[in-house]
This record gives sequence, structure tokens and C-alpha cells, in this order.
Amino acid sequence: MNLIEEMTVLARQARTASHALTRLTTDEKNRCLRAMADALEGDAAKIQAANALDLEAGEKAGLSAAMLDRLKLDDRRIQGMAKGLREVAALEDPVGRLLDARTRPNGLKLQKLATPIGVVVIIYESRPNVTADAAGLCFKSGNATILRGGKEAIHSNGIIAETLVTAGRRTLPVFPAHAIQLVATTDRAAIPALLSLTDYVDLCMPRGGEGLIRAVADCSKVPVIKHYKGICSVYVDRDADPAMATAVAVNSKCHRPGVCNAIETLYVDRAAADAVLPQLAGALWEQGVELRGDPDTVTRLGNLAPAGKLKPATEEDWHTEYLSLILNVRLVNGADEAIGLINEFGSHHSDAIVTKNEATAKRFLNEVDSAAVYWNASTRFTDGGEFGMGAEIGISTDKVGARGPMGLAELTSYKWVAIGTGQIRG
Amino acid sequence: MNLIEEMTVLARQARTASHALTRLTTDEKNRCLRAMADALEGDAAKIQAANALDLEAGEKAGLSAAMLDRLKLDDRRIQGMAKGLREVAALEDPVGRLLDARTRPNGLKLQKLATPIGVVVIIYESRPNVTADAAGLCFKSGNATILRGGKEAIHSNGIIAETLVTAGRRTLPVFPAHAIQLVATTDRAAIPALLSLTDYVDLCMPRGGEGLIRAVADCSKVPVIKHYKGICSVYVDRDADPAMATAVAVNSKCHRPGVCNAIETLYVDRAAADAVLPQLAGALWEQGVELRGDPDTVTRLGNLAPAGKLKPATEEDWHTEYLSLILNVRLVNGADEAIGLINEFGSHHSDAIVTKNEATAKRFLNEVDSAAVYWNASTRFTDGGEFGMGAEIGISTDKVGARGPMGLAELTSYKWVAIGTGQIRG
Repeated sequence: MNLIEEMTVLARQARTASHALTRLTTDEKNRCLRAMADALEGDAAKIQAANALDLEAGEKAGLSAAMLDRLKLDDRRIQGMAKGLREVAALEDPVGRLLDARTRPNGLKLQKLATPIGVVVIIYESRPNVTADAAGLCFKSGNATILRGGKEAIHSNGIIAETLVTAGRRTLPVFPAHAIQLVATTDRAAIPALLSLTDYVDLCMPRGGEGLIRAVADCSKVPVIKHYKGICSVYVDRDADPAMATAVAVNSKCHRPGVCNAIETLYVDRAAADAVLPQLAGALWEQGVELRGDPDTVTRLGNLAPAGKLKPATEEDWHTEYLSLILNVRLVNGADEAIGLINEFGSHHSDAIVTKNEATAKRFLNEVDSAAVYWNASTRFTDGGEFGMGAEIGISTDKVGARGPMGLAELTSYKWVAIGTGQIRG
Repeated sequence: MNLIEEMTVLARQARTASHALTRLTTDEKNRCLRAMADALEGDAAKIQAANALDLEAGEKAGLSAAMLDRLKLDDRRIQGMAKGLREVAALEDPVGRLLDARTRPNGLKLQKLATPIGVVVIIYESRPNVTADAAGLCFKSGNATILRGGKEAIHSNGIIAETLVTAGRRTLPVFPAHAIQLVATTDRAAIPALLSLTDYVDLCMPRGGEGLIRAVADCSKVPVIKHYKGICSVYVDRDADPAMATAVAVNSKCHRPGVCNAIETLYVDRAAADAVLPQLAGALWEQGVELRGDPDTVTRLGNLAPAGKLKPATEEDWHTEYLSLILNVRLVNGADEAIGLINEFGSHHSDAIVTKNEATAKRFLNEVDSAAVYWNASTRFTDGGEFGMGAEIGISTDKVGARGPMGLAELTSYKWVAIGTGQIRG
């Protein structure tokens, strides 16, 4: 069997499973999820034995200590996966939600109902816990999943997927055997092959670095929901409260600089610069942040900066996601200029304004073309948990399909159900 | 300027216009739409002069009489476009609808608000009225449009687009000049070039024959919402009322056989075949329908069929959208077999069950994986107007983004707006 045949078998099986999944009740799905959680904990030793093979191979292949750490499945991480599945079991079933209802003049009753999407491919990198997290969310939302993890985690991912399916089948005789499948081959060409099967695959969600995501988006013939990177920003308006501006900027940058909703650029209204810029910079420097400024910023802060903590920003810097304690700073002539620059240089992820001026805030919230826009709050809240969605499968900066944090509801599509009494069109 | 540069200029202009469109009020948009309608009527002579150039070229190129008819813009069709724009002006603004609202325990107020998608490319074939219809719907929903019509309508489309933009600018000084743009070149390579510009184009909606749509979907790097064809069906269950089954089947096939929501296959429960098949076939034959049956159907109906009105169905027939008075008929062993066959052979568009049995109906409505599913009603209702959406820009059988009929609301995305009082993440 060549690669495209192998992927076609996998995808057809997933399609069949996706139809079987529509027949499971919420209670049946939840029982399976809880059994899967128990099985992960019960089979911890077996999972760790498989994980040891990956760790050994990773060491031989010279993976970095950080990579090896991400790969490792200790007891705590296995319990974390189990806890995640139990939490998903406790969440409301997103399938069958009534999204709209109307009765037409001819008496035809229309209901817009949430449905599973169908077959979802998840492509991800080294963390093997994604296998359980993604499979659990997709299963609860009635989708068949095809998982494609990194080759460095192949044994760990394999045993986790197997454990989940075995637990599901033991719990429920009608559990579809191919509801959760792992791509067995590590051949890179499997990805374009799988993502060419538009008859059987409905959606692909890649998770990982920008390179992986671009490669997936580039080759896919099925819809891809993704975000490439998080170039987020805070704009401090002339009408900002200086203390709030400082708290929001510092939190947005420093709370966890390595994640996508941390900011990379601070825009400061020139009209407020005298009053707030030194204080803002001082607070950021206190957290160890290196600032990269436009010429005006560099001039204004030149005498205040600790050694090595202020540089002129290059053209490239405005497009860079640092994922570390580096922050661009740029003075602008009011909100309109900030909005224009955010729409041009940002990645349409999360952007905040700090201001007491409601009219200015409303303009910013309306015109900034991002998945999440904040008025007087940190960008760090863009997160499924913080938004009250429960577990999150990712964040989207796309505009077709889900946008922003994606939880269970964002893993659904809809259908129109029409109930008649024999209506025909005249 | 080469083609990709030319398309990049167009798409960047559209992106800029899309940002400007977010600043228009509902009233401003409606005034523009009404002025556009007036301008189409006022400039009817100019439009017909341009249309005459297309008709002349079409005749020289040997277009069929049907094609030439579709191309022609007589007074009635120009009034039709104007009426369409006035109707869109009268519809509710889909932008800004509050889709969800929640306040988090930390006091952060979250609103999920409908937004324009951004830049929408519409690719269509010969009917020039699509230029006004699509531009009007996109404009009302706050999207910048790039229109790419067929080369045979290039003069007609050009003058319509120009008329709309001129009317918009005359009405509103801030009307974005590039809110509605037409691709000027007839070079086919313009389509892949335009649809490679993922930074500037958010969505493509092709309208036309399956060949056009497949070519667009195949080359596009931006999301495409579409339906390839409508292989719809009616399933007559053992618990169907025979008269209702006949009325629904005849209406679904014969009311307008050339459109996508007409059926191509009739499934009949074997348990009901004795009672209903002759009556169903008779009513269809009365409308001039040719039946293509599975072996069992052919055997049962053999002695009843008018000459030439009953043939054995080939394998290909089950995959064919006839768009004419031909209908496949297949006996099945109950609803489960029907559901399986519909999911396998159908195009996930519109499918109906006729039954008095609620449990059977619910199974069908849940498990048939189609954009619209009907219980005791004709499939012909899958239509924006019939669903109460107002004007329709198309029908989608996709599951990411809009599914089913697409009106104004289906031309929107959403954003999360978070309103705080200085919240930071702890």
C-alpha cells in the first residue's frame, strides 16, 4: 500500500466513525471519557515504558534538554491528561445546541442545530499530552480525530491513543474503533497526502511553531484553522490612567512572555508620552525587559535606560514575535495611528487599549481587526479557560470558522433541520 | 506590472477599504445601497450600451442562445438588480450582532460580536446581475469585494461596478473607493494569483458550474466556501403517508429540476414499495420524469412504465446531478440503509424523509450529514429567501464557516470584545 492509499484508508475509516459518533448519547460519551482517564492512570507504567523509548531515541538524536523535558511523561503529566479528560466529560455537550429557530409563514419549522464537524486532523509537535487533550475534545464534540504527532514522540503517542480507544471500546460496545486514530508513519509526505482527501477530511488544526503551521496551510486542500504567531500589542492612549496602563502593559508582556497572547509591541500616544513613558519603561525594565524603540522613544528614554536595555528597533523587529523579555515601543499620534499600525504589523490575535475615553475605546474595539480586543485589561486573557470555555484546543486568527480561543463549541458546525407537515414549494 | 503585482495592488486596496468600511454606520450603508439602486436605473441606457458590446462579442464567438440570453441586460433585469439592492438596504445590519455575552469572575465583560469577514472574492460566470447582487450583499455586511466575472460579460460587469462605486462616492464622501472592485484582466491566471494572497484576502466564494468551482478550490490558498453540486434525495419510509410522499417527491424533483436543491434520487423503503412505488412512479411519469432504477425497482415497475421512462441505473447515475427530469430510484431496507447511502452518494446538500414515525425521523435528521435535512417537506426550500434570510449569496455544503443558504449573517465573522477595569492575569 503506498502512502496515499494508506492515508485514504485512515481517512475513510475516520469518516465512517464520524457517522457512528452521531449516534452516541452525551452520557455514553462522558462514560467513555472517564474510562479513558482511568485507563491512562491505570496504564501509567506501560505509558512510561513507551515514553522511555522516545526519550532514549531523543537523547541519541541529540534533542535539547528543553525538548526532552517536553517529551517526558512523568506521573504528574499522566495525571494531568486524565484530569483533562475528566474535565471535558464534565463540560456541556456542544452537539445539538439550538442556535436558531424560526417558523416560516408556510408552517415549516426551521432549527439551526450544532453538529460535529466530522473528521478533524490534528498535527502537532513534541508534547505527547496533546494526544489525549485533542482526542478528548474532538470525541466529546462528536468528531473523529486523526492525530499526527512529532516523530520524536511516536511511541508515547501510540500507546496513549491505543489506551484511549481500548478504554472506549471496553466501556461501550458501539464505540467506533476508528474514532481516534494516529498516523502510524513518520513520513512527512503523509501530511499533504492526508490533507488532499477533501471527501473524507473536514478540517485540519495544526499546533506548533510557525514553520510547521505554514507548511501545513500551504499544502492543505482541506480547511485549516490556525494562528501563525501572536504579535499582540497594548496601546496606551492620552486618556489612560498611568498606573493602569503600567499594570496592563507589564502583565501583557511579562506574565508569561513565551506564549502567543503576550505582547510584542507597546504603542504610546505621543500626547501622553511625557506623563507615562518613563514610568512604563521603568516598570518594564524592573522586570528585566529590553526595549526596542522608534527614534523618538529612544531619544526620550536614552538617559534613563539601564545598560543594554534600550535599542533602536529595526524594521524586522516590528514583525517579530520575541517570545522573550523584549518589547518594541513606538510613539503614535493618537488612537487612529495606533489602530492603523496594529492592523498592519500585528497578527490579528489580541490587542488592548488603555484609556478612560469611551469614544476612543469603542473606535479601537471596532476597528482593530483582531480575534480579541481589550479595553483596560491585559491581553493575557485570550485563552479558552479564561474565557470560560473550559479546555481549549487552540487559538485561531482566521475569520472563516472559529476565531479566537477554540473550545468544544468551536469544534462544531451546524445543520438546518426543517420539520414540516407535507409542505411543498408552490 | 505583472499579474501577481496587479492582483496584489487590488487586494491591498481591498484590505484598506475593508478597514474603512468598519467605520460606516448602518444608515450610511443603506443610503449608499439605495443610491446605487437609483443609479443602476438612471444609467440603464449606458449599461445597456456596454451590455451590447458583450452581446455582440458573444454572438461573434458563437455563444449559444441560452448563454446570450443569460448575458442580456434588458430593462427588467436592470430593475431586478435595483430592486435587489433596495431589499438588501431594508434588511437588518448583520454587523455588530451580539452573539454571546458573559462576565468572568474577575469582572471582565466578554462580548462575542459579529464583524465583517474582511475581503471577499466572488468568482462567477456569465450572468452580469451577480455583480450588483454580490456587491450589495458584501457591502451591507461590511466586506470589501473583489469581483471576477466571466470574460463574456466584461463590459457589462465593468459598467455595473463603476455605477455602484460612483453612486456610493456621490452619496457618502467617506465611501471607500475600493470597497467594490472588479478584476480588469480576463487572464485566467489572475485567479490563482489573487487567491494566493492570504494576507489580504479572507474568503473566496465561487459561483457557477462544478468545473469552475473545483478549479477555484484547487488553486486557492484562502478559504473557499462552496457547493460543487446538489445530489439531493427524498427517502420514503415504511411509515410514510403515500399521498404526502408523492407530493413531496414530485415537488422536490419537478418544481424546478435545473437547480441544486432538486432531488436526483428517490429512496423507497422496501417495506413500503408494494403500497407506494407504483403511485410514486405514476405521479413522476405524469410530470414527464424518466426513472433510472436499481434492479428491484426495474422489476417491480417494468410492466407499468411508459415507453422510454424506465431504465436500469448505472453506477455513474448514482453520482450524477441531472439538472433535468431524470430521477434515480432505489429500494432500501429501512431508514438506516437510506441514511448510509445518502451519506455515501449524496452531496451533503438537502435530503428529506417522509414518515409518520417520529423516532425514525429523528434518526434521519440527526444522522444524515447534510446542510439541510427535512422531515415531511420538500427539499426545494433550501434557499435564503425560503429560510427567511432575505437575499442569498449562495449555498454551502462546507462545514467550516457557513453551511446551507448564505445570506447577510453568513457573510460575517466575529470577534471577542473584552471590557475591563484594569484586570491583569495573576
